[in-house]
Amino acid sequence: MHLAKLHAPSQIQLNEHGNLKHFVTIEGLSKETLNTILDTAETFINDNNQLITSPLLEGRTVMNLFFENSTRTRTTFEAAAKRLSANVLNIDIARSSTAKGETLRDTLWNLQAMAADIFVVRHSSSGAAHFIAKDVCPNVAIINAGDGQHAHPTQAMLDMLTIRRETKKPFEALSIAIIGDIKHSRVARSDVAALQTLGCKDIRVIAPNTLLPYGFSEYGEGVRLFNQMDEGVKDCDVIITLRIQNERIESPALASQLEFHKMYGLNEARLALAKPDCIVMHPGPMNRGVEITSSIADGAQSVILNQVTNGIAVRMAVLALSMNGQLQAQGLLDAGSMV
Amino acid sequence: MHLAKLHAPSQIQLNEHGNLKHFVTIEGLSKETLNTILDTAETFINDNNQLITSPLLEGRTVMNLFFENSTRTRTTFEAAAKRLSANVLNIDIARSSTAKGETLRDTLWNLQAMAADIFVVRHSSSGAAHFIAKDVCPNVAIINAGDGQHAHPTQAMLDMLTIRRETKKPFEALSIAIIGDIKHSRVARSDVAALQTLGCKDIRVIAPNTLLPYGFSEYGEGVRLFNQMDEGVKDCDVIITLRIQNERIESPALASQLEFHKMYGLNEARLALAKPDCIVMHPGPMNRGVEITSSIADGAQSVILNQVTNGIAVRMAVLALSMNGQLQAQGLLDAGSMV
Amino acid sequence: MHLAKLHAPSQIQLNEHGNLKHFVTIEGLSKETLNTILDTAETFINDNNQLITSPLLEGRTVMNLFFENSTRTRTTFEAAAKRLSANVLNIDIARSSTAKGETLRDTLWNLQAMAADIFVVRHSSSGAAHFIAKDVCPNVAIINAGDGQHAHPTQAMLDMLTIRRETKKPFEALSIAIIGDIKHSRVARSDVAALQTLGCKDIRVIAPNTLLPYGFSEYGEGVRLFNQMDEGVKDCDVIITLRIQNERIESPALASQLEFHKMYGLNEARLALAKPDCIVMHPGPMNRGVEITSSIADGAQSVILNQVTNGIAVRMAVLALSMNGQLQAQGLLDAGSMV
Repeated sequence: MHLAKLHAPSQIQLNEHGNLKHFVTIEGLSKETLNTILDTAETFINDNNQLITSPLLEGRTVMNLFFENSTRTRTTFEAAAKRLSANVLNIDIARSSTAKGETLRDTLWNLQAMAADIFVVRHSSSGAAHFIAKDVCPNVAIINAGDGQHAHPTQAMLDMLTIRRETKKPFEALSIAIIGDIKHSRVARSDVAALQTLGCKDIRVIAPNTLLPYGFSEYGEGVRLFNQMDEGVKDCDVIITLRIQNERIESPALASQLEFHKMYGLNEARLALAKPDCIVMHPGPMNRGVEITSSIADGAQSVILNQVTNGIAVRMAVLALSMNGQLQAQGLLDAGSMV
Repeated sequence: MHLAKLHAPSQIQLNEHGNLKHFVTIEGLSKETLNTILDTAETFINDNNQLITSPLLEGRTVMNLFFENSTRTRTTFEAAAKRLSANVLNIDIARSSTAKGETLRDTLWNLQAMAADIFVVRHSSSGAAHFIAKDVCPNVAIINAGDGQHAHPTQAMLDMLTIRRETKKPFEALSIAIIGDIKHSRVARSDVAALQTLGCKDIRVIAPNTLLPYGFSEYGEGVRLFNQMDEGVKDCDVIITLRIQNERIESPALASQLEFHKMYGLNEARLALAKPDCIVMHPGPMNRGVEITSSIADGAQSVILNQVTNGIAVRMAVLALSMNGQLQAQGLLDAGSMV
Repeated sequence: MHLAKLHAPSQIQLNEHGNLKHFVTIEGLSKETLNTILDTAETFINDNNQLITSPLLEGRTVMNLFFENSTRTRTTFEAAAKRLSANVLNIDIARSSTAKGETLRDTLWNLQAMAADIFVVRHSSSGAAHFIAKDVCPNVAIINAGDGQHAHPTQAMLDMLTIRRETKKPFEALSIAIIGDIKHSRVARSDVAALQTLGCKDIRVIAPNTLLPYGFSEYGEGVRLFNQMDEGVKDCDVIITLRIQNERIESPALASQLEFHKMYGLNEARLALAKPDCIVMHPGPMNRGVEITSSIADGAQSVILNQVTNGIAVRMAVLALSMNGQLQAQGLLDAGSMV
């Protein structure tokens, strides 16, 4: 069975016209919605492969609420919002009034009342962004910037944009391998959901059993498990290596980084088993010499830095689309028109 | 005698045309000046009750100098200044050069020399903003964002704006109760001064004697003290509940939060004693179940979140007016014209 | 021999047209280049001696990478970039992914891939900015905001701008004294290099031997050493006092601040030995009563706060010119034209 259906959130992400008004999770979104995000992201990249700026969010207020610190992800959202001409406020949410005994709900309502249009939310608890969108501030566009081990949907969409732009093949025709710490990776979870929705028929998850989530078989149609790396990467079009998130692993699931590298690290010999034009991706930050060899990270097949640039374009798309969806939902904009 | 007269600051807040060039305290300002602030604030709210953006401070530099941390208040000023198209710089004033043995005066002069037009100042010492406006940087517009237990004038003005917009009655006709920790509240002090200036004839201060300031009788004309809550809220048009600021109370003036709630907490029974259209206000952050019952905080008579939105409008007004007053004082703008 | 020649960096700062594309050090830059910076800075100051704003960097992204904290310097760059209408992102580089085991190179490449146009770099290690410009991100304009005890080139250029604007004499005709902790001062090093390049023939370094760098004689043409202050300041046009950087001095080179003040502090009697129109400068933050007497710091000959304002203009110039130089290098702009 399809994972998206098992975990389908209520349709809180869409307005009555079926357009995005929050962006919380990939699961439950249609192929059409994902393609709209990708198409919109492409409009923010010019013919020289450079990001443009746009007045789409001029006069809008975007607040970054990072309950969990992530300098990099916050920076990408700040850069994206500023490229759309928004006013951006980084809220020191850990130091804010919840420290004075105020409820989180009241803190969020207060921020909304300061005329926030969009909240970018990062939280260590799975479901935090969904909860805020559904129960606290449904009229603020909520963008999930990562929640626990659950979802990291903008990362998934930047991966999809990178695959689309770099392979120039339809998702239906691609063989894609995801290697490493699947268990602790919100990226893996979101990537698989996006690939399934976009029609990918050959998704290969490569990991030792200790780094697979419980109930893995539920990943569903099109997904196969490989414990052996050589077999898994054979004839692939895309290899996505994941960070070994030592800081997330409570008990050592791996004897050592060295052992992981030996068994699951992407090196030249293994990459040679994939298609000659196979692209190599990594969500960063990389542990060079562990999950990926330096020569590959810096090599001709690596599109790792393209992912970063595409990440700005995708975040611009999600911010602009969700803003539009909110305005439509509030009767301030016709369905189908852009601000 | 009128408190404003007793504590009247020198007229440092006004330029030679009588227009605002700093905004440090309510005390000493005329009814006309306060109404100008309220009228200007209204221009930043559109017919849909939404805040607009404006180019009034385009090219101007606003520096937030928060000697005392207050994420919420800083955010409201940052949001307000950005809505006016200003460049906003949050100065980490605690880490700045005073740590290297530089005098505060030199630090401020340096910031002024970086072409600052406006300083928003928060300080734990009463009179800090006044001192800077009078003795250090008279040519920078100084906005007091709270100084010790003295004043919080933008909070007072947002309360006035909320009362004016929500009751739609003249101040002269209103009965207004302020309940709780008057002693430690700069909000209470500033609210009373503003209400007196605007002509309110029935201001009721409701608190146990332990939470009244020394020399309370000096609050002057139009102000009455009530130790009994039921009597105090009777037939009121407006009830302002205050936060029990545990962090400001050095020795416990209250047996317990529970006891306070029993004696001075705003609940349904007590609200029923006020006029049927009485509005309920709170400066935030709220201790639900202590000074206010949750059902009232979230109820139909609550205008607590309107206060927050009005706070942005009032801060926009104070920033824009003070900038103008400075330009007039420096001969760069005619009196009466807006930038 | 000329210091600039001894320490000449490779010409990484210039593009093929000889225009600035990074600004890392004064050493190796021509008189013409320095004058271009000064001339450009002047265009950002209007006839009322006020800084203007400009759209020159509209749509550009400036990232502040302060590996070493310096609130003041960061603020000046932030103010300068915002006056040029750039998007400014302050990166919490200490907390960023290098903490997760990522290499610095990867962190910088990631930031570049977020479409950064300019990095403003402050680092405690000499040569850090040069290394980034040469080996890591040559296509991002790198601006050195201070590196170890090596260079602080924007400080030097703001000193040059102040000397040019305030003395209104050609550099060839000036006698300039630099007093104090030469050894630990990146300002002194950069100032001497700039003065030499601009043709100053009489540069006097006044310090006890304990505060002179090793190999001082290499300072080269036009530079003379004085251990006696009275002799050194005689008939000077410009006196630059330096901060006693207690925090940089590991073993006490001075018996006491008091003793330093007695021997090298600038007081009225000593200033009287200079020319009557001699200007007094200090890079800040000042230790009043140590390297400079308060009455002089605040006196008619002091141009210390002018330095601060000129610092914004110079930083605007360096940001705008380097951006242009990068665009020229990348074939996106004709040589000679401004964005």
